[in-house]
Amino acid sequence: MNAQSITVIGLGQMGTALADAFLAAGHPTTVWNRTPGKADALVARGATRAATVTEAVTASELVVVCVLDDAAVRELLAPVTESLRGRVLVNLTTGSPEQARAQAAWAAEHGIGYLDGAVMTTPPGVGDSANMILYAGSPELFAAHRTTLAVLGDPVDLGPDAGLGSLYDAGLLGLMWSVFGGWLHASALAGADGVPAREFTAVATRWLRTVSWFMTGYAEQIDAGEYPGADATIDVQVAAIGHLLHAGEARGIDNRLPELHLDLMRAAVDAGHGGDSYARIIENFRK
Amino acid sequence: MNAQSITVIGLGQMGTALADAFLAAGHPTTVWNRTPGKADALVARGATRAATVTEAVTASELVVVCVLDDAAVRELLAPVTESLRGRVLVNLTTGSPEQARAQAAWAAEHGIGYLDGAVMTTPPGVGDSANMILYAGSPELFAAHRTTLAVLGDPVDLGPDAGLGSLYDAGLLGLMWSVFGGWLHASALAGADGVPAREFTAVATRWLRTVSWFMTGYAEQIDAGEYPGADATIDVQVAAIGHLLHAGEARGIDNRLPELHLDLMRAAVDAGHGGDSYARIIENFRK
Repeated sequence: MNAQSITVIGLGQMGTALADAFLAAGHPTTVWNRTPGKADALVARGATRAATVTEAVTASELVVVCVLDDAAVRELLAPVTESLRGRVLVNLTTGSPEQARAQAAWAAEHGIGYLDGAVMTTPPGVGDSANMILYAGSPELFAAHRTTLAVLGDPVDLGPDAGLGSLYDAGLLGLMWSVFGGWLHASALAGADGVPAREFTAVATRWLRTVSWFMTGYAEQIDAGEYPGADATIDVQVAAIGHLLHAGEARGIDNRLPELHLDLMRAAVDAGHGGDSYARIIENFRK
Repeated sequence: MNAQSITVIGLGQMGTALADAFLAAGHPTTVWNRTPGKADALVARGATRAATVTEAVTASELVVVCVLDDAAVRELLAPVTESLRGRVLVNLTTGSPEQARAQAAWAAEHGIGYLDGAVMTTPPGVGDSANMILYAGSPELFAAHRTTLAVLGDPVDLGPDAGLGSLYDAGLLGLMWSVFGGWLHASALAGADGVPAREFTAVATRWLRTVSWFMTGYAEQIDAGEYPGADATIDVQVAAIGHLLHAGEARGIDNRLPELHLDLMRAAVDAGHGGDSYARIIENFRK
């Protein structure tokens, strides 16, 4: 079986990691970068250097683009629109949902297959099936190219709305920053009493599995629009967060993050929802 | 082999769950609660009702206390100090590290074995070995009673400082509220574009495994006091968070949480650390 030919346009750290993963899986891989020198190492590892964008896009049925931003994508691809007709464009460039939907509309208009994606790891994590690569756009194209795309990481299909790759990406990064914030606050707290970050973090990452289990249950509540408090009400959390704020104050830790959580909890209590579960607080985010 | 006798003092939702887990594992279990009626269901399931606190603490070598707060613990146990001598007190009452250390000092003074613990789940999760119960105080007592305590959940030894159970508890709850906040913000965002919370959450909980992997690496950086940015600098995050803020604004979502993260990132950039990893932000929490 001959592996499918792939083109990768854009050879920053992420584009290079993507091209390397295709090469490692035995795919004939054509690469292009505005600064051609960035392709040298990949060419040494077996990639084919395209002299022009047109040459790059005509070398393969599957064309992966990973450049700085949406403007760079449009600037690169507009001149080669006709060369792209009948091919599949996989846009892994970070952007907004609106930009992704506009790209999908442009692609549809010109007979170009389109998948918009988000790489949910850093460049060294590309090629590891433990990490997700999100795809949104055409479920048919996703199904047709799933096996090839799996060499980059575990491909996750978000369905036909091409904007969802970017929306999930933004939301998941927001979740990551929140996790980092809560974890760094707690690590600073534990560190003040002599606990190494490594020791606290081993417990914290295990705890995230329990928290994930809570989230899975709360997601059902959100979709149902009902938030029974049962064993863990917002009132209970308001009482518990006092210990965290006090411990932070006593150790000179910046408490703005838990104070914001308390504000959100109090707004729910003030709205009469203190007996509900934490999932009710989504209504505060919706304003 | 006869199972060890256990006493559980305090029969709120959590205390009842603890007593039930001991009963289910075949331990002769004596229970006491200020309002005796709360013991009725447990007695029907095989527990022995103690008429007084003295009767409760003298019934077993291992005495588990889970009441409202530290003041309630002191009020209950001060009159039975001599009855506790030579026994092991496992205090699962939520409190501060300072309160736990004071209890440990009081116990040591009176020849009482002491473990301070934190139940890292809700009452229905008690008895499930997937969930952690943290213990701090005497590593020797922990080792001696580990098998018995394992019926409540996976026992985790935090070492000899009795204050660490409460400190970890507060920090881990803070992490949980931060996870919930980031997840609810993102779920509100995705929900605005028609994504059910259940669908987004399935991806979000998988993503937490990747984030855990980042945390594990960053913990080493924190302990080393060096924060090489490598593939994901704070500068890169500052650029990326713009997409989240913009998506939130466009959908009428309360953005105070990501705005706080951006403030923290900018403070690190302003201090000249934009090329470092996110772990550097712990210094902002330390003030």
